[in-house]
Amino acid sequence: MQFQLTDDYIAQIEQLIANKDGDALRQQLEEFHFADIAEILEELDSEEATYLIKLLESDITSEALIELDEDIREKILERLSPKEIAAELEEMDTDDAVDVMGELHEDIQKQVIKEIEDTEHVADIVELLKYEEDTAGALMAKELVRVKETWTVAGCVREMRRQAKNVTRVHSIYVVNKEGKLTGRLSLKDLLTAGEKAHISDVFIPKVDYVTVHTENEEVARIMQKYDLEAIPVVDENGVLVGRITIDDIVDFIKEEADRDYQLAAGISEDVEADDSMRKIIRARLPWLILALVGGFVSVTVLGTFSDAIADHAALFFFVPLIAAMAGNVGVQSSAIVMQGLANKTLRDPLMKRLFKEVVLSLFNGFVLSLLLIAAGTIIMGLDFKFGLTIAISLTSVIISASLIGTLVPIILDRMGIDPAMATGPFITTSNDICGILIYFTIAKLILGF
Amino acid sequence: MQFQLTDDYIAQIEQLIANKDGDALRQQLEEFHFADIAEILEELDSEEATYLIKLLESDITSEALIELDEDIREKILERLSPKEIAAELEEMDTDDAVDVMGELHEDIQKQVIKEIEDTEHVADIVELLKYEEDTAGALMAKELVRVKETWTVAGCVREMRRQAKNVTRVHSIYVVNKEGKLTGRLSLKDLLTAGEKAHISDVFIPKVDYVTVHTENEEVARIMQKYDLEAIPVVDENGVLVGRITIDDIVDFIKEEADRDYQLAAGISEDVEADDSMRKIIRARLPWLILALVGGFVSVTVLGTFSDAIADHAALFFFVPLIAAMAGNVGVQSSAIVMQGLANKTLRDPLMKRLFKEVVLSLFNGFVLSLLLIAAGTIIMGLDFKFGLTIAISLTSVIISASLIGTLVPIILDRMGIDPAMATGPFITTSNDICGILIYFTIAKLILGF
Repeated sequence: MQFQLTDDYIAQIEQLIANKDGDALRQQLEEFHFADIAEILEELDSEEATYLIKLLESDITSEALIELDEDIREKILERLSPKEIAAELEEMDTDDAVDVMGELHEDIQKQVIKEIEDTEHVADIVELLKYEEDTAGALMAKELVRVKETWTVAGCVREMRRQAKNVTRVHSIYVVNKEGKLTGRLSLKDLLTAGEKAHISDVFIPKVDYVTVHTENEEVARIMQKYDLEAIPVVDENGVLVGRITIDDIVDFIKEEADRDYQLAAGISEDVEADDSMRKIIRARLPWLILALVGGFVSVTVLGTFSDAIADHAALFFFVPLIAAMAGNVGVQSSAIVMQGLANKTLRDPLMKRLFKEVVLSLFNGFVLSLLLIAAGTIIMGLDFKFGLTIAISLTSVIISASLIGTLVPIILDRMGIDPAMATGPFITTSNDICGILIYFTIAKLILGF
Repeated sequence: MQFQLTDDYIAQIEQLIANKDGDALRQQLEEFHFADIAEILEELDSEEATYLIKLLESDITSEALIELDEDIREKILERLSPKEIAAELEEMDTDDAVDVMGELHEDIQKQVIKEIEDTEHVADIVELLKYEEDTAGALMAKELVRVKETWTVAGCVREMRRQAKNVTRVHSIYVVNKEGKLTGRLSLKDLLTAGEKAHISDVFIPKVDYVTVHTENEEVARIMQKYDLEAIPVVDENGVLVGRITIDDIVDFIKEEADRDYQLAAGISEDVEADDSMRKIIRARLPWLILALVGGFVSVTVLGTFSDAIADHAALFFFVPLIAAMAGNVGVQSSAIVMQGLANKTLRDPLMKRLFKEVVLSLFNGFVLSLLLIAAGTIIMGLDFKFGLTIAISLTSVIISASLIGTLVPIILDRMGIDPAMATGPFITTSNDICGILIYFTIAKLILGF
């Protein structure tokens, strides 16, 4: 029963669109899940996709629009009138409607708002638009089931039937007091097992996890993950229940954050996919390469200052890429561990203990690697022992310095309020290249004397 | 209401444990969420943690045990008798019980199984143990609410009340036919809004996403994420409903996979945390450094073969780290984009088109970077133009080759059935270092002639 998109199928759909055979398309696609429709839309050009959006029912296309890649959605929205956009937004949950709204130009936003007929829906959207990005307020939906402490179970079920129409999935029923303040929750299961005449105040669970509209997305994700929640209520400054966040949005958020961290570590600074436009990929990749080039120039300059050594100790220069590579690798390892510790809030050891651990670890790794290096260098390459020792001591020193830089830089950035993910990858490798080479030649100069 | 663990609080708990003040501890901790108890356990040594596990009620400690880091759980389990372990497992959902069971030695497993009193629970655990790791069968839980097509809504609610006792959270009610085959689903919301006398066959939704016991975790995660599911039923080869997977397990899986990919990209081959033991961290990090060292030796050898150039063109050697760094950075960028495309199944362009795109992109990036390099090299450093041109042409060639290697290696590994995540990071940077240096000196030799 798995949906599998094939090139043949896309070609068939494109043919039907070219023929403007609306009936056949409707028949073909009406049984599809909106996520599958979205996959199809992503394979079409924006004119074809817009044709389908206009053709199919808004209750399906609105959901499909939400699933689309932002770039593709943008192109489709440009081809729709404010009235057509409004029709799509009416079918969306408020949180999704706000996401789409946020991608429109301000003047188009205003026109779309005028075209939405459901006044309550509009008011909710306008409210959500005012919250800061990356906070629970901007992520939450207004749709939820809310009951009062004073109601009976039977009254609650009646009221729920009415409210539940607007709520795609009921996770928890939230209990509020007279002022609308969140006081607890009730699961559907509890409701099914309670007597009809019982009061909500007798059966509800007064302990409930919640976040405020100002809580950052990252914190929301951490809480929901830690406590295995499928939905979490959101309250305002006064504790009044104003919305809820569901786990599917958090799953998307976790995935996006992970992709972003992975890309940043690889020196890609914008969210790009393999099939994105050349311009977008260049914008994401070139700045880091320029940074690496500048770093490279510094390395060249550093090496130039040791050019006296070239006559007597040319082999020193042959080992430069080895030293630089080790410095880069060690630095990236250290920074990755610290980065994940920062992200998962598992970094509890004090800084000095952590640095001490890195030094001990580096001494051990440096020792093992130096032995291998001396063995290979003197036995296989026939280098003299003093030279081998120089390289070995340098290697160990470089490993220690690289691990300290890799550990310290993310921690310092984090304390300064800068996203430490920016520091991993190219930044760490470049600075470790430079420091590594400097340390290497300084030690070599001391031992070999040139 | 957020729980915030402080060192003071841990010290206080440790003091109470030292005094064996069970009453005070029970009173302090009984109101805590199991995830918070788990956080506390992770800060204690294993003897203290075991004391708490034995002291507190199994319904809380069993959940806390599941949340623990595997290493810490292992140490605690070693201190518990088979009977004590059995008491914990009795309180766990089958999927969690199987996870814990899988960490025990086989002979202890047998003793624990004997000690579990609930025969149905034991049978479920034994069944789940036989499924292959990383498949839906091993991930699923046996706990679910199952109703028959022929029942009435009222009968269904009665039966559900009975079944729901064993199910922590009811997401969907699964509908089966006489043979137990999955035929559809029913939401609690539907049940609340349907008439009591209606038959399930009239109100259930016959379309239901499912996976089989053999579906791989990665695919389960992809499906649940794509279709925004909170739970998915699992069927056996005959379509018989045998279990369900809930989103919280998938959230953990997504997070673990992301952490693992991030670590692999940084050259860390085991799941380690900053606070792990030195031995574990060395085991995760040293092998990659040895790989990098071996690669470094190859670089040294390659450079050695061009040692003739050193007399006339010493500056060539100063540019080695710049060239190597650019090769490494470009390679990691390309491989990261391909890796994510493979993981998210968004790589739909044919291979040749992708490689062509990388070449065009590299030509552009190489051109921009070469201009910068020639400008800086000739103006600031006063290199002669022919030399600058040599470096520029080499740089562009190296960028093209690095991006092709970065793109091809993960795709080839993936087609061979090897996890391409292994290829990123150290492997790509090391091979690109070597190729980069080889290309650089070959071109320099052609142009400058030495």
